[in-house]
Amino acid sequence: MTIVITAFERSPDGGKGLARDTRVRWALEEVGQPYAVRLVSFKAMKEPAHLRLHPFGKIPTFEEGDLALFESGAIILHLAQNHAGLLPDAANARARAITWMFAALNTVEPPILDLSIAKFQEGDKPWAKERMPFVADRIRNVLAQLSVRLGEAGWLDGDFSAGDLLMVSVLLRVRPSGILDEFANLAAYVARGEARPAYQRAFAAQLAVNAPQAR
Amino acid sequence: MTIVITAFERSPDGGKGLARDTRVRWALEEVGQPYAVRLVSFKAMKEPAHLRLHPFGKIPTFEEGDLALFESGAIILHLAQNHAGLLPDAANARARAITWMFAALNTVEPPILDLSIAKFQEGDKPWAKERMPFVADRIRNVLAQLSVRLGEAGWLDGDFSAGDLLMVSVLLRVRPSGILDEFANLAAYVARGEARPAYQRAFAAQLAVNAPQAR
Repeated sequence: MTIVITAFERSPDGGKGLARDTRVRWALEEVGQPYAVRLVSFKAMKEPAHLRLHPFGKIPTFEEGDLALFESGAIILHLAQNHAGLLPDAANARARAITWMFAALNTVEPPILDLSIAKFQEGDKPWAKERMPFVADRIRNVLAQLSVRLGEAGWLDGDFSAGDLLMVSVLLRVRPSGILDEFANLAAYVARGEARPAYQRAFAAQLAVNAPQAR
Repeated sequence: MTIVITAFERSPDGGKGLARDTRVRWALEEVGQPYAVRLVSFKAMKEPAHLRLHPFGKIPTFEEGDLALFESGAIILHLAQNHAGLLPDAANARARAITWMFAALNTVEPPILDLSIAKFQEGDKPWAKERMPFVADRIRNVLAQLSVRLGEAGWLDGDFSAGDLLMVSVLLRVRPSGILDEFANLAAYVARGEARPAYQRAFAAQLAVNAPQAR
C-alpha cells in the first residue's frame, strides 16, 4: 500500500520547510518508508473532498490503504509505532519519548505559533507593534526552561526519537525571529536535527515543490 | 505500584475542574486505576524537585514505579495504551482516536488557551479590550469546523475514546466565555462527557481539593 500525504501546492514560507508536511516527510525518511505527495491549493483545502480527510482544512493528511489520519503529531506517532527508528523499544523510554512529542506540540509550539499569528494575521492591527515584545517573551520563557532541561545532552532523552523530531521541527519555526539563537544549546540541537540525512532528504523534497524557481 | 499524580494545591479556577489534572483524573477513572495525588504550590512548581519531574514547571505529572511522565496528553495516551477503556482495539480505529487526541491539544486548545492568556496575562495591557473579538473569532472558526465534523454523532469517531476525553476537556475551558453554547451540538457533546460517571468522580475529586469552602 502506498502512503500518500498532502502538502501545500505553494507553501506560505516559499520553501523554508516550516510547513507541517516537512515533519511528516522527515519521519517517513527516518523510518525508510516511501511516500507519494498530493499537493493541495488553499482553495481546495476548504472544499468537501479535503475536509473529509481533514476536518480543520489543513495539511498534512496521511492515507495508507483504508486508513486516513490528520494531525502531524498523530501521523508521526503512527509511523513511529509501526516502524523502527523513531521510538525506543523499552516501554518506559518509549513513554518518555512520546511525552516529548506532546511537549513539543502542546507546550512549546503554541507560543511559537502565536508569533506567526501576531505577524501574519494581526500584523495590520493597531496593537500589533506594541504587543510583539509580550509575544516574544512568552517564547523566551518556554525556551529558557527547555534549554535548562536539554543542558549539554545531544537529544532530549537518550537517542534521537520522534520527540526530538517534533521539537526540532517546532524550534525551526522560531529561528527566523532570532529568539532561538539566544539559547546556544537549543540552536546547536536544532542544527544536529537538520544535519540528519533523513531531514536533509525531507527538506529537499519540500524545496523541490516550493522553491521560488519552481514556481 | 501506586500511581501518583500532581495537581495544584489551589487551582486558579477555584474548583471548576479546568486545570489539567482533571483530565488525567478522568482518564484514571475511565480505566479504573486508583491513584494518589500530591498537591504542589505555585512556588514549589518552579523549584528543582518539581522541575526534575516537569521541565516546564506545570502540573500534572505522573509517577508509577520508576516511570515519570509529564504532559497530560502523554499521560492519558500511556494509560489508554496500557489499560482497556479509552482506545478501540482495532488498529485503524485506534490510530484515528489518537488523531483526535492530537487535534484536541494541537488544533483546538491553542486558540482557547489564547483567550485565557488574553484575559489573565494581557488583561491589563492597553490592547486587551480591542483585541478580544479577534481572539474569540479564532475560537469560533475552529469550533465551527469541529461542529460540522461532529454533526449529530455522539462521539467523534465511534465509541467514546481518549480523543473525546481530551476534546471535551478542552471545550470545557471555553464554556465560561459563552462561545461553546453558540454551537448546540458541541455543547451537547460536552454535556455527554460530563455525564459520564468517571468524569463525575474526577470532578468531585478535584473539587474536594479546590472548592472555596475547602480553603
